[in-house]
Amino acid sequence: MNYKEYLSAIKPVGRELENKIQSKLNNLTKPLGSLGRLEEIAKKYCLIRQTTSPILKNKVIFVLAGDHGIVEEGVSAFPQEVTQQMVFNFINGGAGINVLSKHIGAKVVVADLGVKGDIQNEQLKNKKVNQGTQNMAKGPAMTEEEAVQAIENGIDLAEEEINNGMDILGIGEMGIGNTTPASAITSAITGAPVENITGRGTGIDDKGLENKIEIIKKVLHINKPDKNDGLDVLLKVGGYEIGGMTGIILSAAKNNIPVIIDGFISSSAALIAYQLNPNIKDYLIASHQSVEKGHKIILDHLSLSPLLDLDLRLGEGTGSALGMSLVEAGIKIYNEMATFESAGVSEKDE
Amino acid sequence: MNYKEYLSAIKPVGRELENKIQSKLNNLTKPLGSLGRLEEIAKKYCLIRQTTSPILKNKVIFVLAGDHGIVEEGVSAFPQEVTQQMVFNFINGGAGINVLSKHIGAKVVVADLGVKGDIQNEQLKNKKVNQGTQNMAKGPAMTEEEAVQAIENGIDLAEEEINNGMDILGIGEMGIGNTTPASAITSAITGAPVENITGRGTGIDDKGLENKIEIIKKVLHINKPDKNDGLDVLLKVGGYEIGGMTGIILSAAKNNIPVIIDGFISSSAALIAYQLNPNIKDYLIASHQSVEKGHKIILDHLSLSPLLDLDLRLGEGTGSALGMSLVEAGIKIYNEMATFESAGVSEKDE
Repeated sequence: MNYKEYLSAIKPVGRELENKIQSKLNNLTKPLGSLGRLEEIAKKYCLIRQTTSPILKNKVIFVLAGDHGIVEEGVSAFPQEVTQQMVFNFINGGAGINVLSKHIGAKVVVADLGVKGDIQNEQLKNKKVNQGTQNMAKGPAMTEEEAVQAIENGIDLAEEEINNGMDILGIGEMGIGNTTPASAITSAITGAPVENITGRGTGIDDKGLENKIEIIKKVLHINKPDKNDGLDVLLKVGGYEIGGMTGIILSAAKNNIPVIIDGFISSSAALIAYQLNPNIKDYLIASHQSVEKGHKIILDHLSLSPLLDLDLRLGEGTGSALGMSLVEAGIKIYNEMATFESAGVSEKDE
Repeated sequence: MNYKEYLSAIKPVGRELENKIQSKLNNLTKPLGSLGRLEEIAKKYCLIRQTTSPILKNKVIFVLAGDHGIVEEGVSAFPQEVTQQMVFNFINGGAGINVLSKHIGAKVVVADLGVKGDIQNEQLKNKKVNQGTQNMAKGPAMTEEEAVQAIENGIDLAEEEINNGMDILGIGEMGIGNTTPASAITSAITGAPVENITGRGTGIDDKGLENKIEIIKKVLHINKPDKNDGLDVLLKVGGYEIGGMTGIILSAAKNNIPVIIDGFISSSAALIAYQLNPNIKDYLIASHQSVEKGHKIILDHLSLSPLLDLDLRLGEGTGSALGMSLVEAGIKIYNEMATFESAGVSEKDE
């Protein structure tokens, strides 16, 4: 499970089947291209999976949890204990992501990548790297070994579900304070000013926002992450659950599995993965445009256009779940609609 | 089934339960308002149904078909026979709307409001008013009696499903040439210039578009529909399936059933319903923003914000189906998520 082997194995998605897939879509009983982005994502799915006969059955949403030492600096509206409390909520099926995953028929995999406190539960994947990151306003969030471990733990999580026959996955997260590392990662890699990236997270006020911006600037100044080195960015200003999501993305891309990204934090994991290997981009589907303003900067950097814009800012993979249902709709259109010939419908006048 | 009795029975949606509904949403385990538009539509659904304990189980998509005499003027890229062929496709389950309705678990009701040709099939609701409308470039599309009949046939269709326990409905349509009446209706009622409203429908070229704009101007000039009289607009420049959808909306609003509107044509039916009684607006949910540019003008006129923007332009109710799944997601969030108290999760720091 050496993550470098994964990195070197990830190739751009082959386009050889594109004409065949497009021609199938064009023969369905509808005006050419009239199902817009449903057709676009059906094609993308087929290309990622390298098939003209796609199956989309086993859907998995990964929710990775971790804590953040930076909360000492007062960057979040909620107390740190909420991370652990929400993990129990995920396990008990009461969170937003449980409801939406059930709605779309997806399995939820909950994993502890670095929650502060010890949680033993057979429904929780124990992939804990450490008891929360260090306060990155005072130095690196984690060691290099820990960053590698977080990525490789994510790879393990994905591999297990790939062995179970997973067709598509979505990523999500929980971690009080984690819009702060997401903002730092985004500023470090894209070069966008901290002010343009930093939002209110779970709901801090104006004064809290001002403080958060100052803290993120300090974090970047003290740590000086190398924008050309994704691992350096992760270890200095990231988080364990973010590293875990990066690992899931690497594993998915290596195995030709489409990855649905959620909001700002999961997209910051995608940004690190992209920095490690730009081919990653071909395997990503952006589910939605988050309210967090840094999110748009990441999606633009990755040239991804989100499927939904519903003013969501919850995380947990809630946007991923809704987006996954649209991908499935696209694949059903591709697989189940009649053709002009089979339905005896006349084609367009020439 | 006198449609005027329906009109006078439609009241604005009562807001008395709003605080109770909002308070329930605010107590769910998520930052305040962080599920954005899912929360907004959950609240709207509860208010329309006048309940704090909503049920959303029986979902119906109505697909109404009709033909248009105006196709003589070369306004469509497809031949008229396609309307009838697509009705068979709907009955046989091979069209886009069949696939998407199955995806979201909705029943499809297919009705003939005015298809040219005789179709006998037990799966088709025979609500035919006439064998296609007259060529409205030469005079009114239909008689006043026919317009009333189309509306009342739509009411009948909805009432039957309301008796079956329908909780929510979506509308959709099929009718070669019907972006032309939709454009004429939109220009007549909103006053927007024909050029700003008229699009390519199923895919006409530049020359075809120029011709279509001229024809619509001629239609409006010859018929002079009265913008303050929805029935006059319908009979002069409408269509049977459009009138039928207007009737469905009237019935739904009278019975506190939310109506999901689809693209340009179904929205033009909503525009007529709104002209007949502005209270209608409270019962409408806009599923998506169509590629057809007149659609945005209608949604703005009705102050509706679409849930999706997926470059769709198929009609049939395909957008309604996708939007309905989001409404259902919102109601499941409302009904199934844990509260801070039940899950033992700490609330926001004050």
